[in-house]
Amino acid sequence: MLRILGIDCGSRITGYGVIESDGRSQRAVAYGAIRVPAGPDLGKRLCVVAEGIGQVLEAWEPDEAAVEDVFTGLNVRSALVLAHVRGVAMMCAAKAGLCVASYTAAQVKGSVSGHGSAGKEQVRLMVRTLLGVREEIRPLDASDALAVAYCHANLRNSRRGRG
Amino acid sequence: MLRILGIDCGSRITGYGVIESDGRSQRAVAYGAIRVPAGPDLGKRLCVVAEGIGQVLEAWEPDEAAVEDVFTGLNVRSALVLAHVRGVAMMCAAKAGLCVASYTAAQVKGSVSGHGSAGKEQVRLMVRTLLGVREEIRPLDASDALAVAYCHANLRNSRRGRG
Repeated sequence: MLRILGIDCGSRITGYGVIESDGRSQRAVAYGAIRVPAGPDLGKRLCVVAEGIGQVLEAWEPDEAAVEDVFTGLNVRSALVLAHVRGVAMMCAAKAGLCVASYTAAQVKGSVSGHGSAGKEQVRLMVRTLLGVREEIRPLDASDALAVAYCHANLRNSRRGRG
Repeated sequence: MLRILGIDCGSRITGYGVIESDGRSQRAVAYGAIRVPAGPDLGKRLCVVAEGIGQVLEAWEPDEAAVEDVFTGLNVRSALVLAHVRGVAMMCAAKAGLCVASYTAAQVKGSVSGHGSAGKEQVRLMVRTLLGVREEIRPLDASDALAVAYCHANLRNSRRGRG
């Protein structure tokens, strides 16, 4: 049984989702979010992310990790802050010995819903169905993190270990 | 005597420079670079940065740290990779209890040379003069890191702790 950690990086909320996969089916093991208080001190905020990821790694001992590519669509400034968080998250997972794979938003959506242009709501409904989660998944960042983990379970043999 | 760590983040080479300041004059204490092997595994590469910064912090025990703002001028892709490295470097310094200040390239140049449009070579010559370094400073990333530290020594009372 393979345990996969998906991370959905954000400047305020970083979602995480841990799933188990036997290669054919997957189920959610844990999910949640690391909330980073607003403030001017980016260094301290990044420490909160590192501590949070560290706790998740210790509690759930995943074998592999996956993140989404940085979204470069809209605002360069936001993408840059996100990249700081993503760097810290990837480093923490790698330091714990995990390979960290990276997937595009289209790959994640396509993996969960069957097509890369699926809406966010549709993806979130599919995540619950595919991973056997009865309750609504809150916050939404946790659902998105589970989607990344699910994507990795499906695509890890075709593409793995990429930054 | 205040000990300041300047960090010049890069995707391949991250320079560092440690200076001491008594509030009026500054001198270089140590400088060097963390070299990150090329490769597709960004997580592992970020671990090398974290280990390198950790060693510098342990060896030289700086009181405060400073980095340059991410250069958003040319290539978004390069800026995003840089932001991953910068995130890790800032997190490591903050985790060690240091405030991490951030300065624009113009502030760094202006602080070292007197004007924000100084050329790179001019800045590097001034760094040696201002910090009492007789030999050429190699790699250039280390010189740039010393410049950031010097800038912080000069501007820390007007602007500090910013991300």
